[in-house]
Amino acid sequence: MSATTVSTTTAPTRFLDVGNERYAYRRFGGQNASALPLLCLQHFTGTLDNWDPAVTDPLASTREVILFDNAGIGGSTGAVPQTVAGMATHALAFLDGLGIDTCDVLGYSLGGMVAQQMVLDRPAIFRRMILVGTAPRGGEDIMHLEKPSLARYLNDPGLQGYAVLQKIFFTPSASSQSAGEEFVGRLLLRTGDRDPVSGPAVASAQIAAFREWEQFTGARFADLQQIRQPTFVVNGVYDEMIPVRNSYWLAEYLPNAVLLTYPDAGHGSLFQWHDSFQGQASRFLSSDSRFAPY
Amino acid sequence: MSATTVSTTTAPTRFLDVGNERYAYRRFGGQNASALPLLCLQHFTGTLDNWDPAVTDPLASTREVILFDNAGIGGSTGAVPQTVAGMATHALAFLDGLGIDTCDVLGYSLGGMVAQQMVLDRPAIFRRMILVGTAPRGGEDIMHLEKPSLARYLNDPGLQGYAVLQKIFFTPSASSQSAGEEFVGRLLLRTGDRDPVSGPAVASAQIAAFREWEQFTGARFADLQQIRQPTFVVNGVYDEMIPVRNSYWLAEYLPNAVLLTYPDAGHGSLFQWHDSFQGQASRFLSSDSRFAPY
Repeated sequence: MSATTVSTTTAPTRFLDVGNERYAYRRFGGQNASALPLLCLQHFTGTLDNWDPAVTDPLASTREVILFDNAGIGGSTGAVPQTVAGMATHALAFLDGLGIDTCDVLGYSLGGMVAQQMVLDRPAIFRRMILVGTAPRGGEDIMHLEKPSLARYLNDPGLQGYAVLQKIFFTPSASSQSAGEEFVGRLLLRTGDRDPVSGPAVASAQIAAFREWEQFTGARFADLQQIRQPTFVVNGVYDEMIPVRNSYWLAEYLPNAVLLTYPDAGHGSLFQWHDSFQGQASRFLSSDSRFAPY
Repeated sequence: MSATTVSTTTAPTRFLDVGNERYAYRRFGGQNASALPLLCLQHFTGTLDNWDPAVTDPLASTREVILFDNAGIGGSTGAVPQTVAGMATHALAFLDGLGIDTCDVLGYSLGGMVAQQMVLDRPAIFRRMILVGTAPRGGEDIMHLEKPSLARYLNDPGLQGYAVLQKIFFTPSASSQSAGEEFVGRLLLRTGDRDPVSGPAVASAQIAAFREWEQFTGARFADLQQIRQPTFVVNGVYDEMIPVRNSYWLAEYLPNAVLLTYPDAGHGSLFQWHDSFQGQASRFLSSDSRFAPY
């Protein structure tokens, strides 16, 4: 995508009023008119500015990409819900406001939980789903930032802003840290019209949502069997934030899911292996099969 | 591949004398002269006739495919080794006899264990590795045919020959059984020059090799960390013969491996999802990167 094309780095922030809320979003790409838009649902505390152009620009080359700030995030009004269900309600209202009946979704981390809840609430909302670095309801060890392996970075006063992401989204290996440095550089390419950074209140509400998402009643993972959409599950094998076994459960209990895991990678596997990920995701989304394998 | 092209169904069986043994093999394909040959290492009791044309014919469209009967299997002389290490020694001798210093490998089930042992014994032997439905040394629940979930088919006098494969390589779902029926039909396409079918002595020796492969000394899976080759690990999520957790361990402990899992699929995931598998495997093999992600 050339520098003059509207892209992750240059797409203007737009606003959509629905009910009592005003939602911030960016929408770009879409050369193939027959492709459905791809709704991108973001990670813990992430804003529109946390999408990596190396992932979302290639995806936008053949379909519209819609980046979305849920309620209380970035430029969106409202309170950050303390449940994933509350976030799903906002995202569905946003799609209704845009007049989108069906789309594809890329749900990353927290966004992957929101995507699962959305499709359970309204099964026709998604055609194909991509779930990266996320967990099913009833999953384990979801975003326990108090763990020593994460707290040592989050509580390090020498690390601020994106430098923290480089540590917690990537593994300690030299190759992964180098990929993390490049990732941060790409996030900084956008110089104008940036979102406000999330503060502690956002983090606190979202952590409450993770704790609620770890709870389940009845047969564990039974809700996944209701999701018939072809689903592409992706995880790094060394993910400290949401360990890969959560993706194993997704692929084992979703009836129509393919799992891909990446080596030498943590929570940010899609950013570290962006060339591979965007190619695999594009091939998955380009399939018209009712089955996930592509 | 047209009916007149030499293919999985029509390639003549050839023989290679090395030391005291005569090894049976078939070799075909290879339009791309710069591609390395792909050595295919077969499953428990499988012969040259157990390779699915829907998998090996597309792979042969751009590279030479070499199907190999290890010692004591099909048309190969010698005793079936009671260890994976013994099988690896034969396979290395066969490649030496062909004058092949380096190739790619597709190791399926038992063949995946032989491939791992070969690359530990001689690290330069493989450029890229594909391991399907297999397990690392020290893996669990490897080919326990006495389990009720398998014994009910293996001990059913109403099931003979390939009908057993349809039951144990595929899941009980209607879609998987239908794929299994098609798989069996493809194996029967070859009408001439077929291998002798393996008997109980082959099975007994190979089961002994599985039991030995389950043993380990020292740190579990530490040997995997010596394997630097880009590796593509594939498994069905409902594999009763070698459960998918063995592939999780491969992808977690091999330093340079991508894992792909297939839904609604058992041990024969590569045959059930042959269109997807051959495409993914071809893209993986076509990569020149030193990293597994493709």
